[in-house]
Amino acid sequence: MKAARLVEYNRPLRLDEVPEPEIAGPHDVIVKIGGAGVCHTDLHLIQGVWAETLGVSLPYTLGHENAGWVHAVGPAVTSVQVGDPVIVHPVMSCGTCLPCRRGEDMHCENMAFPGLTTDGGFAEYLKTNERAVIKLPAGVEPADVAPYADAGITAYRAVRKVAPLARPGTTAVIIGVGGLGHIAVQLLRELGQSTILAVDVNDSRLDMALELGAAHAVRAGDRAVAEVRRLTGDRGADIVIDFVGNDTTHRQGIDMLRKGGMYSIVGYGGRVSVPSLAMINNELTVAGNLVGNYSELWELMELHAQGKVKLHTSRYGLGEVNEVLHRLENGQVNGRAVLVPA
Amino acid sequence: MKAARLVEYNRPLRLDEVPEPEIAGPHDVIVKIGGAGVCHTDLHLIQGVWAETLGVSLPYTLGHENAGWVHAVGPAVTSVQVGDPVIVHPVMSCGTCLPCRRGEDMHCENMAFPGLTTDGGFAEYLKTNERAVIKLPAGVEPADVAPYADAGITAYRAVRKVAPLARPGTTAVIIGVGGLGHIAVQLLRELGQSTILAVDVNDSRLDMALELGAAHAVRAGDRAVAEVRRLTGDRGADIVIDFVGNDTTHRQGIDMLRKGGMYSIVGYGGRVSVPSLAMINNELTVAGNLVGNYSELWELMELHAQGKVKLHTSRYGLGEVNEVLHRLENGQVNGRAVLVPA
Amino acid sequence: MKAARLVEYNRPLRLDEVPEPEIAGPHDVIVKIGGAGVCHTDLHLIQGVWAETLGVSLPYTLGHENAGWVHAVGPAVTSVQVGDPVIVHPVMSCGTCLPCRRGEDMHCENMAFPGLTTDGGFAEYLKTNERAVIKLPAGVEPADVAPYADAGITAYRAVRKVAPLARPGTTAVIIGVGGLGHIAVQLLRELGQSTILAVDVNDSRLDMALELGAAHAVRAGDRAVAEVRRLTGDRGADIVIDFVGNDTTHRQGIDMLRKGGMYSIVGYGGRVSVPSLAMINNELTVAGNLVGNYSELWELMELHAQGKVKLHTSRYGLGEVNEVLHRLENGQVNGRAVLVPA
Amino acid sequence: MKAARLVEYNRPLRLDEVPEPEIAGPHDVIVKIGGAGVCHTDLHLIQGVWAETLGVSLPYTLGHENAGWVHAVGPAVTSVQVGDPVIVHPVMSCGTCLPCRRGEDMHCENMAFPGLTTDGGFAEYLKTNERAVIKLPAGVEPADVAPYADAGITAYRAVRKVAPLARPGTTAVIIGVGGLGHIAVQLLRELGQSTILAVDVNDSRLDMALELGAAHAVRAGDRAVAEVRRLTGDRGADIVIDFVGNDTTHRQGIDMLRKGGMYSIVGYGGRVSVPSLAMINNELTVAGNLVGNYSELWELMELHAQGKVKLHTSRYGLGEVNEVLHRLENGQVNGRAVLVPA
Repeated sequence: MKAARLVEYNRPLRLDEVPEPEIAGPHDVIVKIGGAGVCHTDLHLIQGVWAETLGVSLPYTLGHENAGWVHAVGPAVTSVQVGDPVIVHPVMSCGTCLPCRRGEDMHCENMAFPGLTTDGGFAEYLKTNERAVIKLPAGVEPADVAPYADAGITAYRAVRKVAPLARPGTTAVIIGVGGLGHIAVQLLRELGQSTILAVDVNDSRLDMALELGAAHAVRAGDRAVAEVRRLTGDRGADIVIDFVGNDTTHRQGIDMLRKGGMYSIVGYGGRVSVPSLAMINNELTVAGNLVGNYSELWELMELHAQGKVKLHTSRYGLGEVNEVLHRLENGQVNGRAVLVPA
Repeated sequence: MKAARLVEYNRPLRLDEVPEPEIAGPHDVIVKIGGAGVCHTDLHLIQGVWAETLGVSLPYTLGHENAGWVHAVGPAVTSVQVGDPVIVHPVMSCGTCLPCRRGEDMHCENMAFPGLTTDGGFAEYLKTNERAVIKLPAGVEPADVAPYADAGITAYRAVRKVAPLARPGTTAVIIGVGGLGHIAVQLLRELGQSTILAVDVNDSRLDMALELGAAHAVRAGDRAVAEVRRLTGDRGADIVIDFVGNDTTHRQGIDMLRKGGMYSIVGYGGRVSVPSLAMINNELTVAGNLVGNYSELWELMELHAQGKVKLHTSRYGLGEVNEVLHRLENGQVNGRAVLVPA
Repeated sequence: MKAARLVEYNRPLRLDEVPEPEIAGPHDVIVKIGGAGVCHTDLHLIQGVWAETLGVSLPYTLGHENAGWVHAVGPAVTSVQVGDPVIVHPVMSCGTCLPCRRGEDMHCENMAFPGLTTDGGFAEYLKTNERAVIKLPAGVEPADVAPYADAGITAYRAVRKVAPLARPGTTAVIIGVGGLGHIAVQLLRELGQSTILAVDVNDSRLDMALELGAAHAVRAGDRAVAEVRRLTGDRGADIVIDFVGNDTTHRQGIDMLRKGGMYSIVGYGGRVSVPSLAMINNELTVAGNLVGNYSELWELMELHAQGKVKLHTSRYGLGEVNEVLHRLENGQVNGRAVLVPA
Repeated sequence: MKAARLVEYNRPLRLDEVPEPEIAGPHDVIVKIGGAGVCHTDLHLIQGVWAETLGVSLPYTLGHENAGWVHAVGPAVTSVQVGDPVIVHPVMSCGTCLPCRRGEDMHCENMAFPGLTTDGGFAEYLKTNERAVIKLPAGVEPADVAPYADAGITAYRAVRKVAPLARPGTTAVIIGVGGLGHIAVQLLRELGQSTILAVDVNDSRLDMALELGAAHAVRAGDRAVAEVRRLTGDRGADIVIDFVGNDTTHRQGIDMLRKGGMYSIVGYGGRVSVPSLAMINNELTVAGNLVGNYSELWELMELHAQGKVKLHTSRYGLGEVNEVLHRLENGQVNGRAVLVPA
């Protein structure tokens, strides 16, 4: 089968012909890919940002945001059948360690992460396990929902975490209205009662944010902090969720906060740096966010089914992967790009 | 009356003769000081670390950790009477702003903070208000409990915040077993079920930590992170509370954490600096802590009354204030030093 | 001034000429009534249901859901001025007891409750205190918002309490879409993500519920439980909030629940009766709800200002009070009736 | 093998010779029983109280509180090996339904419950599954810990649920200091900061409660409510956990409560009956409790390993089962009785 593989850091992915994955363990599931979202983490993986953290050896297939149809199942699989349309939670969790037993799949002590640590979904078929798949309702096209599998639940987890703070009368800032941020604006509207401010460099994204529930659009740049302060009667925001994650947004995100505020990080790459005097005097909290767990993906699919969250996607062929990555790097993707094999 | 005042930054306090405070507002309360704890924040105030943040003008009297007896009350005061022994919550909150109505006194939008922004308790008398005083049970000596008023409730608030994470099987690290840390060890023992590791440079403090409930003592220094990792089966700690707060402890505190862990800051002075990749990949939380609120002080006094928390204090005369500050700066105070006027 | 007073149980209120209230304490506030909502609790008070619980002596003026303009203030009042339009939180709390300090005004140990224990707002003027009043934005008419003062915050508190359970994929039932229930449907839509089922005897109320956010309307009666079970795939509802509160709805509310479900009581009058085997085997929770606190009223006014909650009200003259009470008893009031003096 | 089976309701169990259980599914685990606790639920099962709820057909083997050694495993089992000493969580959960994925094993939609719905552990061998077993540390004797498997985690779950309310200054009542109650007293001491009052008919149990952490012992009977009110300065208790569960304790438990209090039910058999006026006026909560989940059992075993909770057990041979049940029914078992085969 065709697969887009990372062969060398800082080089385009290579479209290779590789063997199809095969059932090995009793709970294995092979998914025929219907669509695979393209994520900033793919850019970071190609740049080698994760190389040391993951300790993975090249080459392998990228693609961690997948949906498709069940193609084959291991002998102990009971909850899905061949032919079922499914969305794929990004990790293969073990189900027996304590974090798994508590429902925290992303903290599994024995996980594999296709697209990061094993072969992912920029290919025709993907091997995952039974614990990772959620059946889609009839009529839902996998390529239309694939971005929920990573972008969606990461935004969902971050918004869930701040939701108890997002009471009426508070202000929440979303920095970056891209693939994750445009979902986050909608989720904040549904899960919280804050006034939402959207910050982005791009006017069409700011317009999208206003349509999706933001009350005000703020141009990213030197004036962003002052503008947030102005819009909050000089108090600052109760909540900031940063989907960009460079040195500038890390600094600005914290500077935007009100006393008692929470700065929540999803985008990454920069360094968070803040005097502890400011942390204690303003009683700030800074929180990192992982991908959401299985039940969070299940809940997000419910919100989608009820029409409360909508994805903005554009489809490309698997062969266009490097062009799509290039566009993503240059801020030329609105919403989320999805690769569809042949 | 005698008062120890900050006249110039980076100079010893000056013992001045100043007029006694007088009742002005309907809820004012004048407290005859029984004891006033000496805190690292007093050192920071003298060094001018807070100058810009507070925007206060010199001279004024320090001392924000006070207990004594009610000396005079304004006409609308109903909950205490002249002669009542009281412990003094550090801020004069307004009671009408929204944070006050929610019980978050330290987030009051109209507060005064005696010892930081107005005259404090390194003196014979202190002016505060009705909302700040809690009656002591008969037989409790104000000088014996004064350190609960700031050191105590700051430790209490920090421990309360992490307590839901401190489930059986987890590990919690206390960095710095001084005035606040020795209370925090006891509170973690009472409010959580974690295995407690205490980190300090000083052997006698580590011994005290072991007596108060820590399971292991760890020598502060280059090996501290490795030692915490070893004691946690290489997983890292679920919780770290840092009562020191310099660049080294900020770095080490984060490096000690397990995936999903929380680093809680009480001591300050350094800079927290961490790549956002680490924040998100390990789903870390960094939290600053203010002084606890009124009901937290009330609860802490209950724990004291039940004998579940004990203070280690040593008494000095008000005239010895500069000597005590010197000893504190050099790590020569075990537990908490309390100034007693004449 | 004119006041509608309860002179004898189970008799119509009597319109008496009584002296205007006067400032006595430093924090007293006299409000010129703009509107006073009429509540089922007024019916219960007239019937003597509360007589033993309250231990109050007749006659006194009813009316506990008030808004108007500040008419006079005590000498220590700082947060409102004569002429300010205000909504009146129903209780005069003391501000110094521990529940008050924690923000739980309804658990105040020294409260007065105008309209239940002292003279209320079915009159031209009402005496309350500074802690009870919230300034209205310019342009908001007191009579239009008065029902938030009791009906609104009672619904708000009940919905707030269940909101953490109202995750995507759950079902919540509202029994009774009257003065409180029609607010609750909107609040559940805003604060939770459950599918909402509305139960009522009255078709026009069920239509209103569907307009306000309910997904399905269920006719009250013998078939209601079966219908809720059918609509939930035979699982039952995760949440039931009962705004009626008779023996039938108490029984049905519990029978509608799913394993792990919560039955939340606002309406009252009947008796909750359930075998403990059912309570433990299905791990049910039954919760009573009081009126919301001050900050909950503040938050609800924010939601109103943002247009997220709308009241259905109808106005009557103070002199029509007994006719309005009669209509309420017979289920002939849609939304909430508000009495306007003069 | 020998097994004590329920052949007819309201008759003694019959000691039958039955075939040993065999591995059928990929995740099956056969446990050689080391000890099986005897529970009031066994009495209820024999009396037929559960007959309708469970819809199970006789005969089958009782015993739902088991520990022993792994005897055989299915082909997909990876987390335990033959010979491992294990404690057995009471239910065989599926691991794939949503409640399982959230960690709520007792809400599993496809569970089997050995000892209630399939053959239990009053026998030489028990069939369960991989998700139910937790390895014991070397040196721990299964018969010594078996009661944690049901009595322990039921108490743990109930105490965990009330722990956030058990703040310093509150009062918690434990009604019934038997097999579950004597664990609950210890857990309340470890997980909460309430003053603990123990209620029982039996003086030696009350003495045990005082040793385990209760501050006061209250004789069960007509005066119990008045005594709790007296001990709480006439305020009532913030928390009551009822391990008895008859009509009297249900009534008294609610009557003991303070405004805002929680009545938590573990023992069952009676009927909870309360006017909704009392529920709302005092803002009471009544909560039923199921057995705890897997991670709660894991946490409880941690507390045991740290010596923070201790079991009082007495051992009997499997052949003495009917005598033990008789003693239990007559209140002649202190702590928990454990059956040991052969």
